[in-house]
Amino acid sequence: MKKMNKANNTLKEIAEILMASRSVLLFTHINMDGDTLGSSVALCIALRKLGKQAHILIEDDVAAFLRFLDKGYCTYDNHIIENPDICLCIDCGDVDRFRERKEKFFEGKQKGCIDHHVTTEPFADFNFIDPTASATGEIIYELLKELPVEVDKDIASAIFAAITTDTGNFQYSNTTKRTHLIAAELWDYGVDYNEISVELYQNNRLEKLLLQTKILEQITVFAGGEAAICGVTQEMLEETEGRMEETEGMVETLRDISGIELAIFVKEVSREKCKVSMRSKKYINVAEISQKLNGGGHARAAGCTVMKSYEDTKQEMMRLAEEYLKG
Amino acid sequence: MKKMNKANNTLKEIAEILMASRSVLLFTHINMDGDTLGSSVALCIALRKLGKQAHILIEDDVAAFLRFLDKGYCTYDNHIIENPDICLCIDCGDVDRFRERKEKFFEGKQKGCIDHHVTTEPFADFNFIDPTASATGEIIYELLKELPVEVDKDIASAIFAAITTDTGNFQYSNTTKRTHLIAAELWDYGVDYNEISVELYQNNRLEKLLLQTKILEQITVFAGGEAAICGVTQEMLEETEGRMEETEGMVETLRDISGIELAIFVKEVSREKCKVSMRSKKYINVAEISQKLNGGGHARAAGCTVMKSYEDTKQEMMRLAEEYLKG
Repeated sequence: MKKMNKANNTLKEIAEILMASRSVLLFTHINMDGDTLGSSVALCIALRKLGKQAHILIEDDVAAFLRFLDKGYCTYDNHIIENPDICLCIDCGDVDRFRERKEKFFEGKQKGCIDHHVTTEPFADFNFIDPTASATGEIIYELLKELPVEVDKDIASAIFAAITTDTGNFQYSNTTKRTHLIAAELWDYGVDYNEISVELYQNNRLEKLLLQTKILEQITVFAGGEAAICGVTQEMLEETEGRMEETEGMVETLRDISGIELAIFVKEVSREKCKVSMRSKKYINVAEISQKLNGGGHARAAGCTVMKSYEDTKQEMMRLAEEYLKG
Repeated sequence: MKKMNKANNTLKEIAEILMASRSVLLFTHINMDGDTLGSSVALCIALRKLGKQAHILIEDDVAAFLRFLDKGYCTYDNHIIENPDICLCIDCGDVDRFRERKEKFFEGKQKGCIDHHVTTEPFADFNFIDPTASATGEIIYELLKELPVEVDKDIASAIFAAITTDTGNFQYSNTTKRTHLIAAELWDYGVDYNEISVELYQNNRLEKLLLQTKILEQITVFAGGEAAICGVTQEMLEETEGRMEETEGMVETLRDISGIELAIFVKEVSREKCKVSMRSKKYINVAEISQKLNGGGHARAAGCTVMKSYEDTKQEMMRLAEEYLKG
């Protein structure tokens, strides 16, 4: 067997490793999104077509909007393959993002990692990490070209789902010429862009909509109209039967209001603990604000944890934001 | 001068007509969207680069989210060009959609029409109508290839704005392989997909958000969970300072709720007059419901006008919907 170093391998090498194996266990990251699942499903189908035993080992639920992708590929069963030839994590380069399955991952005779996150360092026996890819789906699509397998509609649809979700429907700054060229190629395999979009986006829980409505009722615009804050409490979740993860995107909704430069979203985790997300539009460095509370992040997206009640956290954040905007 | 018949011309012929002219007046449709304006802007820039006198004659406001496109191309001034060599309507094949400018249009020595709407019949001296194009922007891009002009970043960005808005960010069923191939080509001219997306989508009025929130507070789910109804009254507009046109998309938001097959949205136009929009997800033919009230539309999208109060219209629609669902 080829000795692998910890730098990137080529996709051709990875294809050879996969071809030499009999069983492959794929690992998604927790809080599964369209990219980790779509990429894993595409590769899983391809491996099965090549006669391999292949499964996707998961530890959390497949979200409703992604369920159309899983036609019997995902399992919670750690024993589905004993001593797999290959354990391969997809769209994930941090063992903490598959914590409950970590032990199983290292049971693989060979461990691999295919990812596009810029923070991922090669850590497995073989790796392909390409931060210029808009989605891991782009990488998987290119890997499939190195395998003696015919791409079919299901594979292509899973790749499309991975790419369209991870690029915000081709709008985020990770979208490149290559992204559109791949989307165009997928058409030839019978992908119905709209059919997938209907599955992904026309399936919102009423409770989610009611929760989001309740949150938006409580927007406070401050700092002379430059900043906006709102949030979610445990009580709001109970009242609406919404889920905490269904508030995803709310901080961006705040940011996207005309004239708002700074958006702050507060999640009440428990009585004296809140998580805060911040976004800025053009010039505020939100990481500088979050650092005052030992948080982290980037200039346009940052967050922190505040050990205070919901109301006190909101007050504290408004104070810090106004201080920063004056400075 | 070549004699034109009323069928489609080739883009080459249209390029020749444009090249032989000195002045071109472009016409958008009313309720300007990204496609009519982006396509017109792209062609206007190209014509000016070719030394032509070119302007876009408009009759309604450029919406805030599209204003970045207009760098001095649009005018309300009917006299900006007297007796233009060419009057060309873009993304519009119905003179009622440029009613206030109709007389001016027919002042053109030659009249032309470039459009992708399936309902458009060739009516001008020269025409190019292609319903397989996802957006008129696609056609304009191909027309530019027939002109001795270099596509630059501004032209390419206007084309991208046209295409991305008219395809719902590459998600609607009008999106094709060609759409993605063009988007990929635009990259080479320096288009920044994300920069345009920020202009288009990160610019929502707070009043719009508050209006939409107020509307969603009032969702009624009925017919055993299969149908949902809500709407907007004049009072709600006043309270939130939202605008009627800012309720666009709300009926689709209703439709996109899990389990909802039929979505109904009621707009109170005046005390005894409401406009109703309906959408269905998979199987209900909403045109059959709207026809009972002398309305029109398609199987998945239809509407009608009801000469009743807001509350009575809602009751009537719920009654009709339940009757239909039972039948």
